[in-house]
Amino acid sequence: MKRIEKISLSHGSGGEPSWRIISELFLKEFYNPFLSPLTDSAILTLSSHNLLNGLKTCVPPLGKKEAGISCRDIKIAFTTDSYVIKPLFFSGGDIGKLAIAGTVNDLSVMGSKPLFISCGLIIEEGFEYDLLERIILSMKETALDSGVQIVTGDTKVVEKGAADGIFINTAGIGLVMDGVKLMRERIEPGDKVIINGTIGEHGISVISRREGIDFESEIESDCSPLNSLITSVLESTADIKFMRDPTRGGLASTLNEFVKGMKWGIVLNENDIPVSKGVRAVSDMLGFDPLYIANEGKVVMVVSSADKENVLKIMQNHPQGRDTRIIGEIVSSPQGMVVLKTAVGGARIVDMVSGEQLPRIC
Amino acid sequence: MKRIEKISLSHGSGGEPSWRIISELFLKEFYNPFLSPLTDSAILTLSSHNLLNGLKTCVPPLGKKEAGISCRDIKIAFTTDSYVIKPLFFSGGDIGKLAIAGTVNDLSVMGSKPLFISCGLIIEEGFEYDLLERIILSMKETALDSGVQIVTGDTKVVEKGAADGIFINTAGIGLVMDGVKLMRERIEPGDKVIINGTIGEHGISVISRREGIDFESEIESDCSPLNSLITSVLESTADIKFMRDPTRGGLASTLNEFVKGMKWGIVLNENDIPVSKGVRAVSDMLGFDPLYIANEGKVVMVVSSADKENVLKIMQNHPQGRDTRIIGEIVSSPQGMVVLKTAVGGARIVDMVSGEQLPRIC
Repeated sequence: MKRIEKISLSHGSGGEPSWRIISELFLKEFYNPFLSPLTDSAILTLSSHNLLNGLKTCVPPLGKKEAGISCRDIKIAFTTDSYVIKPLFFSGGDIGKLAIAGTVNDLSVMGSKPLFISCGLIIEEGFEYDLLERIILSMKETALDSGVQIVTGDTKVVEKGAADGIFINTAGIGLVMDGVKLMRERIEPGDKVIINGTIGEHGISVISRREGIDFESEIESDCSPLNSLITSVLESTADIKFMRDPTRGGLASTLNEFVKGMKWGIVLNENDIPVSKGVRAVSDMLGFDPLYIANEGKVVMVVSSADKENVLKIMQNHPQGRDTRIIGEIVSSPQGMVVLKTAVGGARIVDMVSGEQLPRIC
Repeated sequence: MKRIEKISLSHGSGGEPSWRIISELFLKEFYNPFLSPLTDSAILTLSSHNLLNGLKTCVPPLGKKEAGISCRDIKIAFTTDSYVIKPLFFSGGDIGKLAIAGTVNDLSVMGSKPLFISCGLIIEEGFEYDLLERIILSMKETALDSGVQIVTGDTKVVEKGAADGIFINTAGIGLVMDGVKLMRERIEPGDKVIINGTIGEHGISVISRREGIDFESEIESDCSPLNSLITSVLESTADIKFMRDPTRGGLASTLNEFVKGMKWGIVLNENDIPVSKGVRAVSDMLGFDPLYIANEGKVVMVVSSADKENVLKIMQNHPQGRDTRIIGEIVSSPQGMVVLKTAVGGARIVDMVSGEQLPRIC
């Protein structure tokens, strides 16, 4: 492939060009066992026993038992995201809510309980203090909602024209829940693919506001922290094998990450994928496919067939999961592909997003 | 005080206006016990016993002993910084080196061993791939030097004109070393103030490059990870009471943070503060005071008087501490102030930086 000369918007799309730069540059140069799975969060084991060689240790050796409690290391999830969304305020949320919810969700889908968040602000000189205050209050509220604490931060101000209003980076730390085994390797044909509701609301809400498109009824972003919903499922006995939040690149790109290099594929039933009338109408009008539109309050899970009804029930009883549906299943063939059975009886391959679709959507 | 209307460059200076926005907005709204000390890193205790209520726990109760090992929770340090430095490349470093060293240093001065780093990139459309590669290689090298691993990341691309080249956020996790007690509350009159070398190199190097100022001999930034130097001191028996890295706002602002609200003050001896001829010359020419100029490879410590010789020896034997000096001491009066005994025999109060001095210096 030709060497990349300049960074383009597509390199931040979450699709194929993003993956190229990640694998050819970041993964190659930064290579280490924690980074290499390229998951939403890195899973790290903290053990003063192992890590502080030479220093007095304070945690008993791995696996040692005492009074019925298995004593071992602490496993954490660690993640980061920068938020550059435009406009800063949209129906259903704003950059502050998004910056907390997005990072909480990245920690949650890795099977961890989100605990601590950092907040790095880059602000353009001249930015209205009132807007900053609204954003901070929104971060505060979302942090309260999801039970995380913003424990450290940094503020940089750049001169007028050197940034676009405000950019927010959050990093997060979560504690990996005991007994959770979320691994693509455990997925097998017959397992079901489940999503907690309609797709495309976030992207359509943002692009509508940005382009000044007026609709009869405004479409609200689904932006919200999902840790409560995800925990309720993970704390059940159901066999959840894997999950991700389909953000940049949409459901299509996320499911392509599921199947990449695996000896199984996914068949989706178009009829079962929940899309609201509003999202459908705007997508048709603007020429977008809802499968590729970003969500910020959705999680897609792979569940053993035996537990599908159980999981559906748990999720549908949760305020963020009322519209939960089984949208497809794992198949032994074709391998490594996502296929959509269309409403009219056909079938087509669903690829990863290949170029820029909607820049600055998160 | 009048309500702030717009964010100005001074709000990112690390001086008084920065503190105002931090205390009036961030600390007020995000308030929690971890954030409230406003230290370089938050110190967090991870304990599945305490935090995962309802879930099976895997760490014995705090303080329980087994086979001579005291079994307790794991304490981590967590920090974040965004880097918006201009120009991206300067004598002695670049934004990539700075992004790793800065975060490593923030973890180190809290008495932790830096382990894991996240990397969030915001790139302007059209940015040269070759420059990105140079920056990534520099991050890689600095990470190797300091023994940290870059374990998670995110890349956003914004359209041309919406950012200035590249901004980098790093967050970091360190493991707090056993037995370390770095607390301002332990400082008392008679303790000594020590710095590991000359001040002002970073700021002068960056501003020279930015303004295209030519000198006979180029001034190199001191930008470097200090964890090895700091660990060597913390692993000794010396009684180190507190330390910080004097970055934005310079040595003057950092020492003002030391004394804020305390029942003691600091007297500095101008004659003992190491300033290179080059930094002195450029500072005089541009009207800067080296005390307020950013450093990126300096640490200032408060050490018990009894241990000062011991610490001096350890540090002077380390490549990053050859020019270590005692520059002042803790005095019972005046309280809460930093006073400079000038070279000509006078004395003046050294305030925190009050306005913008050098924007985009880190």
